[in-house]
Amino acid sequence: MQKSKGITNAKGITGCRFSLSVMSDNYAAMILDAIGRVNTRHVWCATDALSTVYRGTRPHVVEGVRAVFTAVNDGKTHITLDATFSSGCPNDQAADYVGTDTTPVMGDYGASFPVIGKIAFYPLGAADYMEHISAVAQMAEAFHVNMKASHYATELAGDVNNIFAYFNHVLAYAEENITHYVLHAMLSVNSPGLKRSESHVELI
Amino acid sequence: MQKSKGITNAKGITGCRFSLSVMSDNYAAMILDAIGRVNTRHVWCATDALSTVYRGTRPHVVEGVRAVFTAVNDGKTHITLDATFSSGCPNDQAADYVGTDTTPVMGDYGASFPVIGKIAFYPLGAADYMEHISAVAQMAEAFHVNMKASHYATELAGDVNNIFAYFNHVLAYAEENITHYVLHAMLSVNSPGLKRSESHVELI
Repeated sequence: MQKSKGITNAKGITGCRFSLSVMSDNYAAMILDAIGRVNTRHVWCATDALSTVYRGTRPHVVEGVRAVFTAVNDGKTHITLDATFSSGCPNDQAADYVGTDTTPVMGDYGASFPVIGKIAFYPLGAADYMEHISAVAQMAEAFHVNMKASHYATELAGDVNNIFAYFNHVLAYAEENITHYVLHAMLSVNSPGLKRSESHVELI
Repeated sequence: MQKSKGITNAKGITGCRFSLSVMSDNYAAMILDAIGRVNTRHVWCATDALSTVYRGTRPHVVEGVRAVFTAVNDGKTHITLDATFSSGCPNDQAADYVGTDTTPVMGDYGASFPVIGKIAFYPLGAADYMEHISAVAQMAEAFHVNMKASHYATELAGDVNNIFAYFNHVLAYAEENITHYVLHAMLSVNSPGLKRSESHVELI
């Protein structure tokens, strides 16, 4: 969709810290397999006991996380992705990233499948942060992503590829307009869904 | 630890949107059982397909989330809790909460177990947000919670009860000093841990 830009300092680095949760006895093998199958030559990677961090140019990072989420989805197991995209932290340094690259990404979308989720967008240090949050919510419609306001997050639903294209667009907007920002997303596939949700409510 | 205060408007309401991920074929029953066993008479509750929301006074909300996380832990299954605590959103309304209550909470801690996790603190609309983030990180030591700076989050480790007491303290500080804020936490129990993490790194 867009070519990556040259990185001259940490401000050109977008990162994502993400965790996959696989609701299956076989979770470890499924996660390792998915991560192993994703081409990550354009992003810097590190994993701790809780999550994996990708750092690089925005389109490569977004595409990498999309690819991992697509790779882990076997079409039946309930899986969630918790992802924190961010850029512009004043304490960030121009380290832990892979050099510039101009390979177009986000062109080959791979598998399509329906996803539900939630997002929260946090512009930091900005007095007009509510306006940016509102602008970001309004961008979803053009990507065919359905949004619903809720407490402490905006719920969303749509095709996985549309959702990641929307995330890339939100982060491009943030790059242009906000010094330091965080996009927190949780995505879910193969959820037992509303039926289970209703029994939750009854139990509470 | 502290008595809850009377709520006169939405600013007195603390909320938490949380999701449990249980890495087991038996995840649905384990989650339903845990949620059913927690006493939530002092918080407003709602569940959608992805997460549960508690709203009420700060100590009751923190204690409720701690109790759910403790209730779901069977001492062997890998489980994560993703929790977004927040208060002060300009769009929030004085609705969807349970009335004032002065019952002391957070006195009976129940089970103790080791937890690893990560947190990120987002003060919104504040030019001096980095100072608040730094202040919050420095509070951990007094609660015997170990912290380690990382990309896009601060890693933490400690006893589950110390960690939630720390969260309550952070949110009390935020109530006093910041108009609108979000504390995002992910906690993990019974993780295969570093060994699995190392093989992640090799695979990447």
